[in-house]
Amino acid sequence: MQRYKIELSYDGTEYAGWQVQPNGITVQEKLEWALREITGERPRVHGSGRTDQGVHARRQVAHFDLKPAKRPEALCTGLNAVLPSDIRVLTVKPADAGFHARKSAVSKEYRYFIWNGDVVPPFLVRYRTQVRKPLDAAAMARAAGFLEGKHDFAAFTANPNREVESTVRRLSELRVGAKGPEIVIKARADGFLYKMVRSLAGFLMRVGEGAVEPGRVKTVIASRRRTARVPTAPPQGLFLWNVKY
Amino acid sequence: MQRYKIELSYDGTEYAGWQVQPNGITVQEKLEWALREITGERPRVHGSGRTDQGVHARRQVAHFDLKPAKRPEALCTGLNAVLPSDIRVLTVKPADAGFHARKSAVSKEYRYFIWNGDVVPPFLVRYRTQVRKPLDAAAMARAAGFLEGKHDFAAFTANPNREVESTVRRLSELRVGAKGPEIVIKARADGFLYKMVRSLAGFLMRVGEGAVEPGRVKTVIASRRRTARVPTAPPQGLFLWNVKY
Repeated sequence: MQRYKIELSYDGTEYAGWQVQPNGITVQEKLEWALREITGERPRVHGSGRTDQGVHARRQVAHFDLKPAKRPEALCTGLNAVLPSDIRVLTVKPADAGFHARKSAVSKEYRYFIWNGDVVPPFLVRYRTQVRKPLDAAAMARAAGFLEGKHDFAAFTANPNREVESTVRRLSELRVGAKGPEIVIKARADGFLYKMVRSLAGFLMRVGEGAVEPGRVKTVIASRRRTARVPTAPPQGLFLWNVKY
Repeated sequence: MQRYKIELSYDGTEYAGWQVQPNGITVQEKLEWALREITGERPRVHGSGRTDQGVHARRQVAHFDLKPAKRPEALCTGLNAVLPSDIRVLTVKPADAGFHARKSAVSKEYRYFIWNGDVVPPFLVRYRTQVRKPLDAAAMARAAGFLEGKHDFAAFTANPNREVESTVRRLSELRVGAKGPEIVIKARADGFLYKMVRSLAGFLMRVGEGAVEPGRVKTVIASRRRTARVPTAPPQGLFLWNVKY
């Protein structure tokens, strides 16, 4: 048995997210099918985490095991030859048997891209969330600053009934940058709750619209309850940006 | 009658080019349909030039006439509300009756984007021509330098039987830039012949592969005959970049 670590990039537009599920084709499914095509084996592919329907990955990491070891370069070329062009394997490397794409991850970074203007360029329409109303990026940045650090993020997850051991996470970085009509939210943490990044982005957009004061952050965190102040931002602006080990 | 000048941007992937034709939907057709939808009139839309099937436009210019004058801002918003998201109107301005999108154009710029590597990022796959074999960008730049200036470009057009008054054009700029796996060819001229930019790009790619010496440019121009040294590069790497008046 040989374990492999792969880095991949995908345009999530056409996929029902990362994880295999009954409705719609997923990225994980495509990868497992591609591995079967080129090796004849049926390894399970484990990702660093799920991405939702329509969410993109600039850099996702996954692992799988193959019985007879294969040349990593041949695996990379072979996978890209059978995969559709909206999923690309960037690197394939042999990994220790103890490596686990999800459990070994030390931190993850997501970026959320907002186009704050009337006309989204046609070349970016699949990768930006459009907000026509002018957003106050400075207010968003202030609110983001209050969210950084170790907090209970129960108010920023979509499904509080999910069984998770804890809703406490260390958000080591949450920054808002603006350049012309582009607003980018950069979020880095040891781990994220279900739909947490889209919830943070949705909340920051409410702050940018002037509907919520940046200073309200502490109250929202303390409430541990999800309200209308925390909508889930649309998926197409979200990219899994990087995973560190 | 009021004439309008519009600037627009489109992703050409799904279209059979700019100009109305029997097979497939074109950008011109979509615009004429959109104008009918929002004004009830059936104006003809005149572009600065045709773009082929699959070619993109960062900035195309067109004109049309409407009987009762409309507010330009309302036209812009109205058109974008009915057009698909891969065609966007950037600006609408009233123009003099003498303005003509094609005839009044002073110069045009195209850019051709090559991804010179094994893996095209999924977010760029619709907008790059992939060349796996390493290209010698410096040789391409030398050849491009020899092509600049006023020449008879008969060897660089797809259909020499087309009735054109002359195949002489002034290519004021032809530059090759490289940055990592990206190679960009920038072409600016008073006007271009049919498939001229893709022919120039195809020729420069042959030079980059080492199949043609940069110094052969003069012979190729002088021959006035299209040969295998001048293939037509694929459409998806090509963008109409700018039109000047």
